Amino acid sequence: MSQLKFDVTYSRGNSRIGELNTSRGGFKTPVFMPVGTQATVKSLLPEEVWDTGTRIILCNAYHLFLRPGPDVVRQAGGLHRFMNWPGSILTDSGGFQIMSLAHMVSISDEEATFRSHIDGSLVRFSPEEAVRIQVALGADLIMCLDHLTGWPVSLDVAREAMERTLLWARRSKQVPIQAHQSLFGIVQGSIYPELRRRCALELAAMDFPGYALGGLSVGESKEEFYDILHYTCEFLPADKPRYLMGVGHPVDLIEGVMAGIDMFDCVLPTRNARHGRAFTFAGPLNLKNARFAADFVPIEEGCDCKACAGFSRAHIRHLFSAKESLAWTLVSIHNIRFFQRLMDRIRQAVLQGTLGSLREEMEVLYPI
Amino acid sequence: MSQLKFDVTYSRGNSRIGELNTSRGGFKTPVFMPVGTQATVKSLLPEEVWDTGTRIILCNAYHLFLRPGPDVVRQAGGLHRFMNWPGSILTDSGGFQIMSLAHMVSISDEEATFRSHIDGSLVRFSPEEAVRIQVALGADLIMCLDHLTGWPVSLDVAREAMERTLLWARRSKQVPIQAHQSLFGIVQGSIYPELRRRCALELAAMDFPGYALGGLSVGESKEEFYDILHYTCEFLPADKPRYLMGVGHPVDLIEGVMAGIDMFDCVLPTRNARHGRAFTFAGPLNLKNARFAADFVPIEEGCDCKACAGFSRAHIRHLFSAKESLAWTLVSIHNIRFFQRLMDRIRQAVLQGTLGSLREEMEVLYPI
Repeated sequence: MSQLKFDVTYSRGNSRIGELNTSRGGFKTPVFMPVGTQATVKSLLPEEVWDTGTRIILCNAYHLFLRPGPDVVRQAGGLHRFMNWPGSILTDSGGFQIMSLAHMVSISDEEATFRSHIDGSLVRFSPEEAVRIQVALGADLIMCLDHLTGWPVSLDVAREAMERTLLWARRSKQVPIQAHQSLFGIVQGSIYPELRRRCALELAAMDFPGYALGGLSVGESKEEFYDILHYTCEFLPADKPRYLMGVGHPVDLIEGVMAGIDMFDCVLPTRNARHGRAFTFAGPLNLKNARFAADFVPIEEGCDCKACAGFSRAHIRHLFSAKESLAWTLVSIHNIRFFQRLMDRIRQAVLQGTLGSLREEMEVLYPI
Repeated sequence: MSQLKFDVTYSRGNSRIGELNTSRGGFKTPVFMPVGTQATVKSLLPEEVWDTGTRIILCNAYHLFLRPGPDVVRQAGGLHRFMNWPGSILTDSGGFQIMSLAHMVSISDEEATFRSHIDGSLVRFSPEEAVRIQVALGADLIMCLDHLTGWPVSLDVAREAMERTLLWARRSKQVPIQAHQSLFGIVQGSIYPELRRRCALELAAMDFPGYALGGLSVGESKEEFYDILHYTCEFLPADKPRYLMGVGHPVDLIEGVMAGIDMFDCVLPTRNARHGRAFTFAGPLNLKNARFAADFVPIEEGCDCKACAGFSRAHIRHLFSAKESLAWTLVSIHNIRFFQRLMDRIRQAVLQGTLGSLREEMEVLYPI
């Protein structure tokens, strides 16, 4: 019995406003989840993440399986306690990392076999094992292991991966999970409508408490991405949360909400921060640029984040020049807060029927 | 007219307890100043530094002169505002960095000429310029430019450097400074008692609001260091603060207080933190060590710092393994708090007459 409560409180077209409640607390949807790959949102204390308005983060089961290992996290009392995060946590299953980061050795209906990106050791991952790892980690929302293909991919290869994803989803459901946990199914099928449709309907028939869209924004064109996104959402139950994995870009978030997506995660705010790239509602800034050397205003006037409350562009530019890690911290705080403010604006725009004009505004600032 | 107020409220032997007040506020002495070389205490937000009990930090005029430059800091409204630090700031003059970090080209009574360690550009530094830079930076306590020698050094070379330091101190006093600033003289003379004595007495005759001991703990034996430290303090005015530059090690702090020192600065807590070395009152820990992989207690039981309040050794060890900068942040918070707790204990021990036994305790834990 899932502890997850999901209420759609308003909808307009395919877009919906709702509230998602885990045993750790509730938050509004559509929601953005910052990424804490290795049991830390890079360069931030948990309270700094919380203060951006974030109530749920994503951690990577693949990374935490390899290091420090699920046993250490379980002994620590679970991931929340291990990393000192009071909010909700979603863990991905590792499907994406096995494809993108590890050195795949073989994949069969039984399991995926790959070499660790850290030490090259041989690792076997079955769908059951992926769930058991996430049970040990103790995340609130956990994901079935899925089979991702590379890009581009033929219909036949994509079909095989999708069928295996369905097989694995069925097996994943048989693994006992903790009472507070909810297991999401993942829709695969690349850009092929018939595959996505079949995968979504089959997963829906298995009655998961939530559904993710995987294998998107991996190299296909924006048009292909958006088309399959809208198409697939139609086959997912309206009363369950929908999660678009690894997305993303400000315009993609809006497009996702237009398609009926409720949850997003992306490394963009924190990764860009470490490269000096700040998001603002007047467009992006590269804070490493010399033009900020004597610019004594905050990253963004009117922003309520801790970085903008006390620090100038000139100071942050200096910190980047001097290779001081406080630069990453400050811009990460700002960028995550930007994404949370953007989600506020998106939810407002859904209520007011102005999502189209918000999309246009963001597309000018952040071209796709 | 100096804004600095210094009151010795208690003394026992050569050790003293006092209170130092700048226009930014007061704090108890003996005081430890964490180092914020490049206008940031590495990997910490200013509020995190403040929460360790720190009320004064040291910044490096040499580094800030080269980058971002005194004009940028002045335009920002001074160093406090530039780096968002509400407490007091002391800047060193650059004498030590010119000797240790830059590529010295020549030194004369007129000025030091050296090449920047950042870009190799040729820089001239006169004693007047060193004060003017610190005036532009706007620190509360500023230092005369001094001439340090390498180690070992002959009596003749040490004498020449000491005489030049005196000449430069006289010239430094002629440069106008801000109303809230106080200019300290620096005693040089290596390990030679007659040089130290002469330098201290001559500086005292110039009537500085405070006096620093420079050129110590630079390679000489502990015995030589401690001998000259005690000897020199005797010639410094009792009613003015005495600052032992770049020290240091827990036992050296106690030895300094025994000699009558009131102020210290050192990179030890933050530099060690970045290498995983934590200070505790049960001895040092190397948190990178595999034995902490499943050790779920805080760095130090009973410590009241933010790191110990929420994070285990196992989590921090994992962060070091995963090369996550939050590791530096957490251990820096703890280590600075350790140094501030040590200063609390030192001040208590002076009042209770137990400094000798505290020294023995610390020498067992942190052998010199």
